[in-house]
Amino acid sequence: MSDYETLLALEYAATRLRINSIKATDASKSGPTSCASISEIMAVLFLKEMRFKPKDPRNPSNDRFVLSKGHAAPVLYAAWAEVGLLTEGDLLTLRKLNSDLEGHPTPRLSFVDVATGSLGQGLSNAAGMAYVGKYIDRASYRVYCIVGDGESAEGSIWEAMAFSSFHKLDNLVMILDVNRLGQSQATPLQHDLETYRKRAESFGWHAQVIDGHDIKAILTAFSTARSVKDKPSILICKTYKGAGFPEIENEEDWHGKPLGLKSAAVLQHLEAKLRVGPAGDVADMKGKLVPPAPKDDCKPTKLIGCVALPTPPQYKLGDQVATRLAYGNALARLGETCDRVIALDGDTKNSTFSIKLMEAKPDQFIECFIAEQNMVGVGIGCAVRQRTIPFVSTFAAFLTRAFDQIRMGAVSQTNCNFAGSHAGVSIGEDGPSQMGLEDLAMFRSIMGSTVFYPSDAVATERAVELAANTLGICFIRTGRPNCPVIYRADEQFAVGHGKVVRTSGSATDQLTVVAAGVTLFEALKAADLLAAENIQVRVIDPFTIKPIDVELLKTAVQETCSQVVTVEDHGPEGGIGDAVDGALSQAGISHIVHRLAVREVPRSGTPAELMHKYRIDANAIFLAVKNIIAKR
Amino acid sequence: MSDYETLLALEYAATRLRINSIKATDASKSGPTSCASISEIMAVLFLKEMRFKPKDPRNPSNDRFVLSKGHAAPVLYAAWAEVGLLTEGDLLTLRKLNSDLEGHPTPRLSFVDVATGSLGQGLSNAAGMAYVGKYIDRASYRVYCIVGDGESAEGSIWEAMAFSSFHKLDNLVMILDVNRLGQSQATPLQHDLETYRKRAESFGWHAQVIDGHDIKAILTAFSTARSVKDKPSILICKTYKGAGFPEIENEEDWHGKPLGLKSAAVLQHLEAKLRVGPAGDVADMKGKLVPPAPKDDCKPTKLIGCVALPTPPQYKLGDQVATRLAYGNALARLGETCDRVIALDGDTKNSTFSIKLMEAKPDQFIECFIAEQNMVGVGIGCAVRQRTIPFVSTFAAFLTRAFDQIRMGAVSQTNCNFAGSHAGVSIGEDGPSQMGLEDLAMFRSIMGSTVFYPSDAVATERAVELAANTLGICFIRTGRPNCPVIYRADEQFAVGHGKVVRTSGSATDQLTVVAAGVTLFEALKAADLLAAENIQVRVIDPFTIKPIDVELLKTAVQETCSQVVTVEDHGPEGGIGDAVDGALSQAGISHIVHRLAVREVPRSGTPAELMHKYRIDANAIFLAVKNIIAKR
Repeated sequence: MSDYETLLALEYAATRLRINSIKATDASKSGPTSCASISEIMAVLFLKEMRFKPKDPRNPSNDRFVLSKGHAAPVLYAAWAEVGLLTEGDLLTLRKLNSDLEGHPTPRLSFVDVATGSLGQGLSNAAGMAYVGKYIDRASYRVYCIVGDGESAEGSIWEAMAFSSFHKLDNLVMILDVNRLGQSQATPLQHDLETYRKRAESFGWHAQVIDGHDIKAILTAFSTARSVKDKPSILICKTYKGAGFPEIENEEDWHGKPLGLKSAAVLQHLEAKLRVGPAGDVADMKGKLVPPAPKDDCKPTKLIGCVALPTPPQYKLGDQVATRLAYGNALARLGETCDRVIALDGDTKNSTFSIKLMEAKPDQFIECFIAEQNMVGVGIGCAVRQRTIPFVSTFAAFLTRAFDQIRMGAVSQTNCNFAGSHAGVSIGEDGPSQMGLEDLAMFRSIMGSTVFYPSDAVATERAVELAANTLGICFIRTGRPNCPVIYRADEQFAVGHGKVVRTSGSATDQLTVVAAGVTLFEALKAADLLAAENIQVRVIDPFTIKPIDVELLKTAVQETCSQVVTVEDHGPEGGIGDAVDGALSQAGISHIVHRLAVREVPRSGTPAELMHKYRIDANAIFLAVKNIIAKR
Repeated sequence: MSDYETLLALEYAATRLRINSIKATDASKSGPTSCASISEIMAVLFLKEMRFKPKDPRNPSNDRFVLSKGHAAPVLYAAWAEVGLLTEGDLLTLRKLNSDLEGHPTPRLSFVDVATGSLGQGLSNAAGMAYVGKYIDRASYRVYCIVGDGESAEGSIWEAMAFSSFHKLDNLVMILDVNRLGQSQATPLQHDLETYRKRAESFGWHAQVIDGHDIKAILTAFSTARSVKDKPSILICKTYKGAGFPEIENEEDWHGKPLGLKSAAVLQHLEAKLRVGPAGDVADMKGKLVPPAPKDDCKPTKLIGCVALPTPPQYKLGDQVATRLAYGNALARLGETCDRVIALDGDTKNSTFSIKLMEAKPDQFIECFIAEQNMVGVGIGCAVRQRTIPFVSTFAAFLTRAFDQIRMGAVSQTNCNFAGSHAGVSIGEDGPSQMGLEDLAMFRSIMGSTVFYPSDAVATERAVELAANTLGICFIRTGRPNCPVIYRADEQFAVGHGKVVRTSGSATDQLTVVAAGVTLFEALKAADLLAAENIQVRVIDPFTIKPIDVELLKTAVQETCSQVVTVEDHGPEGGIGDAVDGALSQAGISHIVHRLAVREVPRSGTPAELMHKYRIDANAIFLAVKNIIAKR
């Protein structure tokens, strides 16, 4: 095909993308203007620039594409119709209950790797894919990400920009769609393209400012980007929202709205462009262009369910080991057996002990610096297509920084794992800003998540191993202080299975205490104090807080007068207390849960002082149990 | 005092700041190297540049100071000793249980407006204070914020940079402490000051690169910054971590660590500098410099507890009104009665309806664009010293973006209010990325929070009024669809007080149903269906989910066989179900809570289809109640 014909074919394709975006949004009460601004870009990407197999969208050798501005979903679906994976009829099912063509893209669709729709996240996901492509797969696939100008206000975009240039991701191309208009008003920079260029260049990117509706300019810019070495590339595209729609282009108040009464005229205008070419003699050329094939240099991987610690944990009963240290040990051991187990950290690796993997296998560690949102987004990108098993760590408190990314990770069906260290007041003197007191609430609320709260080093190593092999988001909560090893090296652990760590026998236990991490040891101390007064309690280590062991709790509660005491180095809402209350309700057991938890913003002090002050230590448990039993 | 003497006095003060930082950290197992890099900057700020009353730190006319790099707290405390608010003896109580000199600064101290310690948040807080100073107080106070180079990797810093230049905050000065070293390794840019300059300039700031240990240069730079109009200023300071500490300065692995065995030698070195001046003839000049007084042009305000809607809500029973619209109406009405009620939104004002206040009172609205972390930080800054009552709104789902900022808001003792619209699957076709399904879990987990979930327009207006007058963090959850008005205009609402919206009498109700928002109306429909089968249920609208009305629930449950059904357009963890389970446990009532909630990642569809599919509609409630009663 001649260059002229190629240009013409792309122009027709862009027009078809607009038409199909309008038809789909007309049928579903949504709007096509955010699609129109990127129609030429999408046509070039899907029919000329990207190398992929249209009928095998998750092929590992394919170039990757992320539509960070997920509200332009209709044009993404139209592009996949253009390359033959969907039909034009499929497009009309947009946003219907039984269609996977949702309002924003999700991986229910074979051609979507990460869900988008919460803005400013796609570039981090794309950077994770590019990092894996360049440094782990060492394959030739490239990664393309379209970002809206409105969402470029999100700081996570700039975190991703800094990350991508620091790591020299020259296989990553960002297309910034500067269409000037946000949802409710113009963007801060409107069409000030030079400021975008300065920002991008100062963040270490190769930047090109182009007319985003000029197909030739787009082709040239992609070609230039391909030649740039050691830097990611950005195409800063001047576009118009609603481009090509008469009376709508570049006008306010059209965000997300159907064209309504104007639709027929706009469609007529666009369809006229298709019927006759500029030369007056060309048909619409549909199907004349097909995406170039990728270089087949990346093999499929199947990781989840396939990795194991090389040997049982290497601790002795009674050893004093912080669970955060055991986390690092397990990560290093798992990483040595599988070169696709990787760790990401945010300049806390010497506190979370993810440094252990870095020291053992430097190529399996990604330093993300103090930018947790991007770190989580990169982790989710790394997990795509099971190319790696990522473990993302920082203080549990600081994972709250990325709640939106983690929430979207669930929509993305990610298998990314998270580890939060420095849980609770037992960190001591650093004070409340550093104490994870909301992390269990956060991770429990994530759809389909698994929440590990291992209490000793053996349990922690098994939690890491289980997390690596479990689908969906896993969270492992670790603590700062040293705690005794209470499980033998050959102890078996499973998701949803707790342990009775102390009992006097089913007939004589008077109350059940559920505790984890530092509070488990306080519960054991309290049990000794109580036993000295002839009060026997059963102590349960739940191991996973979600799912929690309903059967174990049900039996315990039935045998101990329907009452439970929960003790947690966490706030009273959303943690162990809520989980146990919910489990017993689910089991249909009438019950009362007495919660011991941190009930106010704590302060600095020693770990022991703080656990005492906030009433989660052995003394508080002892008094609570005595009080409950006295009232019977 | 001559210029020479001033320089000398500042140099001595900087040395004293170092000495006191070492002594305090020696006594508390923490480290002084992050203090040493900013000792000259702190000396100049506290003794020469900032205008404030040292014995009246919260005076509204004082210049504001935010130490975003909160881990340098010891030098902040030392600075307040230098100006006479603390004694040097006080400094040795650092990080002790009974001292307010915590590991990171909190507003337990009179001279701290916002807690810091989770990095990258202080600049947003400072921007909020500067916005209020320039546009609301219209006073002459200025705002200074020290940011660490490591934390400048946080995207929230760049969100704040964009915000501050867009709003022309020329009363804001950021000091970037480029000391090259993070916690676990060197920062990405190390001492590449020119790249920092390019980034800052591209984000619209007036930038000066200086030697951060050169007092004369610091003085000159602050003076230049004072003359800059319509732009915020940044001083990009080349510094050394551990500056002035022999064998420690600019070395790795000293982050947060006490000097230990090296301490004595370093102290001796520094104290020698104090004993004899460079001229050989000067004492240490302590107390010779005092901070200049502020211009008294800002009056104290007392807002909380003092604002009220001008008239009762203006709806009729049966009107169809979305609670998000009622939120906007109430905000506008409250804003018209009090010019310090302000709204902040992230380009969703036409969806959350905060636009109503913007239209009524444009000066009381701050557009924050799509940058939720900064928006929340700015809101917290605006609330400081009760200068304003801010309401921060976006989709409930997107408030998760700022969980860390909200969490830190609780440590900051903020009175900032939050409103999240588009709760749950009842938003319909936009899909899971836009649906708030974790927001109740998030806000319940915040220490000291109040969580409103009003079900109709009347309740929503009262929730806004109550939130404005309630100390601590308040959250108001609103919905997208229209719902009927069920409360009369004169209905009274209070925090922690729910309503029985349907009962057949205490003796005949067979089960209690707790629901809010869209599900309350489904519960009422289900009650009709059940009544047709001679099953009577009590329906409760909790109004606030935290605190929840324990007494009302206790009575209801005691009268309806100890069982409750909760129905929520939210995930099953952390929301109404957990709150009710917890309340009944707290009340000491043996109970079972049957949760109806959204149990998987939802998809696109109509609101009715989705509420049906995820089993939170009238039909699901009807079946659940019948099933429970059949088992009795």
